[in-house]
Amino acid sequence: MKKYPSALENLIESFSKLPGVGRKTAERYALYTFTKMPEEDITDFSNALISMHKDISVCPCCGNITESGLCSICSDETRKHDQILVVESIKDLYKIESVGEYNGIYHVLNGVISFSKGIGIDDLNIDSLIEKVKNGEISEVILATNATLEGETTARYIRELLNEYNIKVTRLAHGLPVGGDLSYSDEMTILKAFEGRTEY
Amino acid sequence: MKKYPSALENLIESFSKLPGVGRKTAERYALYTFTKMPEEDITDFSNALISMHKDISVCPCCGNITESGLCSICSDETRKHDQILVVESIKDLYKIESVGEYNGIYHVLNGVISFSKGIGIDDLNIDSLIEKVKNGEISEVILATNATLEGETTARYIRELLNEYNIKVTRLAHGLPVGGDLSYSDEMTILKAFEGRTEY
Repeated sequence: MKKYPSALENLIESFSKLPGVGRKTAERYALYTFTKMPEEDITDFSNALISMHKDISVCPCCGNITESGLCSICSDETRKHDQILVVESIKDLYKIESVGEYNGIYHVLNGVISFSKGIGIDDLNIDSLIEKVKNGEISEVILATNATLEGETTARYIRELLNEYNIKVTRLAHGLPVGGDLSYSDEMTILKAFEGRTEY
Repeated sequence: MKKYPSALENLIESFSKLPGVGRKTAERYALYTFTKMPEEDITDFSNALISMHKDISVCPCCGNITESGLCSICSDETRKHDQILVVESIKDLYKIESVGEYNGIYHVLNGVISFSKGIGIDDLNIDSLIEKVKNGEISEVILATNATLEGETTARYIRELLNEYNIKVTRLAHGLPVGGDLSYSDEMTILKAFEGRTEY
């Protein structure tokens, strides 16, 4: 394929750094931006990238997004600070917050252990979790990583690390989704539902 | 879903303006940019958007990308300026250029007539094509819009408009792709292959 002018090639390259975006999609995004996006939208886009980087940062305590210092959850005195819910990503944290049930604090790992992707324990935000458990008065750690190979591996690993501390470690229940149809569920979910079955 | 801080919401909104990107994907892109993208990549991305807008523009003659004035194709004296190939998009133009066979000039419509998407003839770069035919010494217009409902409608419409001028109007052949397997071809392609069959 013939090369586009460098100004467009640079934009294609930037787009192709996004997750799951290959050359073809990046080209589509860049050409769309060039041919169809109004000037003010492009300026907004460019500014949003810079101000995202300038105005928000990672909460030093839990790894959540924050606009300054501790995040709104960590700095909330009304929440239970002895209960930590461990999630893979900020997205998962927001999802759980939207349910409105959980009232403890969080810990965002920012990924999961993945041998295939070369993500090891040092790439994750695990040390600070252990540090918190060691220093703080934590009574329960709830592991809410996903029920994937990577999520399970990560949960197991953290469970091992927490063994030497006298705290309760729990894992969110996996099973059939409420309102879901059994016939549409995958095997692993059904197996998990059996494992976790309760007296009725 | 709980709202993210405004700096992140703005970026999500910008990403969701890209073609085929919904709220979920935009969130994924924005959170990835926030959590995983190195600072210099974010700065490059932001600059690429601005310089794309500043450094490149649309060729006033054909609608191709240009770094200044006429594009490299329109300003190339060695090309045949009496032959115009009409394409839907800049991407199609680059694809044909990469083959290296065609030696005329182009005309980029920047879309196709689509009733479902509300894209009418006024949204396309058609007037300037007719203008070129009227004023210039054009001998052939090759219609290379895709063999979709929209592409065909657009090709027919342009064909009608060109009726009053005494020029050759052709359409790129549609049929079975070379190296393709007949059993994997869709019905329309096979029908087109029958319509366009040649003596052998």
